Amino acid sequence: MAGSTLAREKLHQAVEILREQDVDVWLTFVRETLLTSDPCLDVIAGIYCAWQGAFLVSASGERIAIVGRFDAPSVRELNAYDDIIGYDESIRPALVSTIERLAPQSLALNYSESDPAADGLTHGLWLVLNEALAETEYADRLVSSESIVNALRGRKSTTEIERVTAAVHETEEIFEAVRSALRPGVSELEVASWMHEEVAQRNLGYAWERSHCPAVNAGPEKEVGHSGPGELRTRRGELLHIDFGVQRENYCSDLQRVWYVLCDGETEPPADVLAVWQAVWSAVDAGAAALRPGSAGWQVDAAAREAMTAAALPEPMYALGHQLGRSAHDGGTVLGPRWDRYGKAPLGIVEAGNVFTLEFGAPVPGRGYIGLEEDVVVTASGIEWLSTPQRELWLVE
Amino acid sequence: MAGSTLAREKLHQAVEILREQDVDVWLTFVRETLLTSDPCLDVIAGIYCAWQGAFLVSASGERIAIVGRFDAPSVRELNAYDDIIGYDESIRPALVSTIERLAPQSLALNYSESDPAADGLTHGLWLVLNEALAETEYADRLVSSESIVNALRGRKSTTEIERVTAAVHETEEIFEAVRSALRPGVSELEVASWMHEEVAQRNLGYAWERSHCPAVNAGPEKEVGHSGPGELRTRRGELLHIDFGVQRENYCSDLQRVWYVLCDGETEPPADVLAVWQAVWSAVDAGAAALRPGSAGWQVDAAAREAMTAAALPEPMYALGHQLGRSAHDGGTVLGPRWDRYGKAPLGIVEAGNVFTLEFGAPVPGRGYIGLEEDVVVTASGIEWLSTPQRELWLVE
Repeated sequence: MAGSTLAREKLHQAVEILREQDVDVWLTFVRETLLTSDPCLDVIAGIYCAWQGAFLVSASGERIAIVGRFDAPSVRELNAYDDIIGYDESIRPALVSTIERLAPQSLALNYSESDPAADGLTHGLWLVLNEALAETEYADRLVSSESIVNALRGRKSTTEIERVTAAVHETEEIFEAVRSALRPGVSELEVASWMHEEVAQRNLGYAWERSHCPAVNAGPEKEVGHSGPGELRTRRGELLHIDFGVQRENYCSDLQRVWYVLCDGETEPPADVLAVWQAVWSAVDAGAAALRPGSAGWQVDAAAREAMTAAALPEPMYALGHQLGRSAHDGGTVLGPRWDRYGKAPLGIVEAGNVFTLEFGAPVPGRGYIGLEEDVVVTASGIEWLSTPQRELWLVE
Repeated sequence: MAGSTLAREKLHQAVEILREQDVDVWLTFVRETLLTSDPCLDVIAGIYCAWQGAFLVSASGERIAIVGRFDAPSVRELNAYDDIIGYDESIRPALVSTIERLAPQSLALNYSESDPAADGLTHGLWLVLNEALAETEYADRLVSSESIVNALRGRKSTTEIERVTAAVHETEEIFEAVRSALRPGVSELEVASWMHEEVAQRNLGYAWERSHCPAVNAGPEKEVGHSGPGELRTRRGELLHIDFGVQRENYCSDLQRVWYVLCDGETEPPADVLAVWQAVWSAVDAGAAALRPGSAGWQVDAAAREAMTAAALPEPMYALGHQLGRSAHDGGTVLGPRWDRYGKAPLGIVEAGNVFTLEFGAPVPGRGYIGLEEDVVVTASGIEWLSTPQRELWLVE
């Protein structure tokens, strides 16, 4: 299975990160993953667990899975764990004795106030674990795995970058199909249904829930946000804005594209539209220029945010960029302002191998919404665009 | 949207349950539900939330959603919340002031050591919430919503039972298609691919991950569990066992069916196969007879389990039944033994409106595996079968 190659890659990387961060053992603890799963389980195993399952990685290089008897065959098929312990009635004896054997000074668990990708441990399982370890010295050695998960998810391997890039290319082809079909008078729902057909024909998944993927916003009357496509139609003298991403081999893309519908006699967008287009691009380019290893997420955002307000555009009430990978919102460092709702995520330091979106937008009164969004990977010295940036508004005749 | 009708139904039901259980306020607290979602959010909203979102239900009948600005349109579309408060930088001020206004003596949160369906609150969000409430008197009034969620998910409405039944019927039709196509020498993977085609043609989803749905076990060499279909083939004198479920309008089925492949000259299964078949059915029927409102889950399981051991069959290392609904494993009361790994779930009391699977199985040496699984709803006095029980082994000629 292709999935298990990646799980092995990421497990090797996890061992390195544990050594680098001086953490002895990292434990992913799950149960009935149809109901509540831990995003880390997808990274290091990508399987379903019915019963309580413990996946341990140690700085000494051990990879151990303690799972229910019926979950064990799936783990064995991965060929990624050295030691697979099956149990019937209770996970506790094997779990406690394994932790006692490893004798970690620090035992990292997947909880985080800031990073949803590192917050897969439920509070109930936290209680179960604390009860199981109550008689041991390890209950006092529990730490958050936030920085481990941030590094592990954030530092994309070559395989991971190839997969995101492939998803980006599929998305761009679907946008091209829309581009050649668009006419004035088409409804948001029609555009969405064209795109859904393309997704089905290409055997792709959606980067977020299908009913809102794509988000399609025709003209100025639409409330931009996570609202789905509706009955509004493309009209001459107005904008069409689409936010869309696909999932391909478990990796996602996330792009926005904008069209202007020409009026009779027009051959290019009017000045008010072009002014906002250029100002938003200047802001995104300012952010792109600030995006390199060592920058803090909030600094990159601030470079772009200042350009928006300097151009007298309304300040975007969202971050300039988020990470992209298995999930369209991949957690870890956020290129965003230091607002409470982002927790510590904007304080994170950008690393080579991180894949980010760069997205800002602004309304054009009476016309609609201009929202740019491109996908980039951070290199040793700056960035590389994974998408072909939409440098010009697309025109509908 | 059909989904929002159900959300409204369940929210009304939630108010009744809060009154019955004397809990003042129930809070579902989520964030970035692409990465970690709370199964309760699907029940009471069924939407995606990018930012921290708080969904409050009070015994006084208020339904309040506090969500990020861009998540608000989806909540409004539901037409299920009286009060929708959007925020930009931080959820805390609105969340704390709303809780202060409601002034609950008890504030129920979704954490549970036993029930994954009631354990959607991550430990990180638990910390965020405790920090937000630290200066108030409400930090000491937090309780588990386990019994609320158990009742809310478990007491299926008419609409919900209709949806499960529809999923069961689709599943039975797919089994019939397999039944008419089966021949000796067909591989597990071929059977799975027929079933996947049926699922695609019928526009259905899978009740669990596609690679293991269906589970297909041909002959005696297969390790039964969550291992996927492989290269083993149906052979004369052996059994074929399939475990399969679909998802239709967000509700699931979960059934097992068994075939015997006749040898040349045979017209019915041999005595060793029939003996196990009848013994397993006697056990399942003993469980079915014990399944009624007021029984504890473990009592129903024990009735069936004792019949298995009385018939000298190996004791199944799993529960007789689990609930079925939005998820194939729907949480709440389990018809299972009082083993540590089930926590308190087998102590739960069966209620009218609960939908359960009834499933036990045993190997037939040299032949393969017999696993029965039917879906039933608990009525005022006993049960009603939602599936047409497979009372006879199906024969392949």
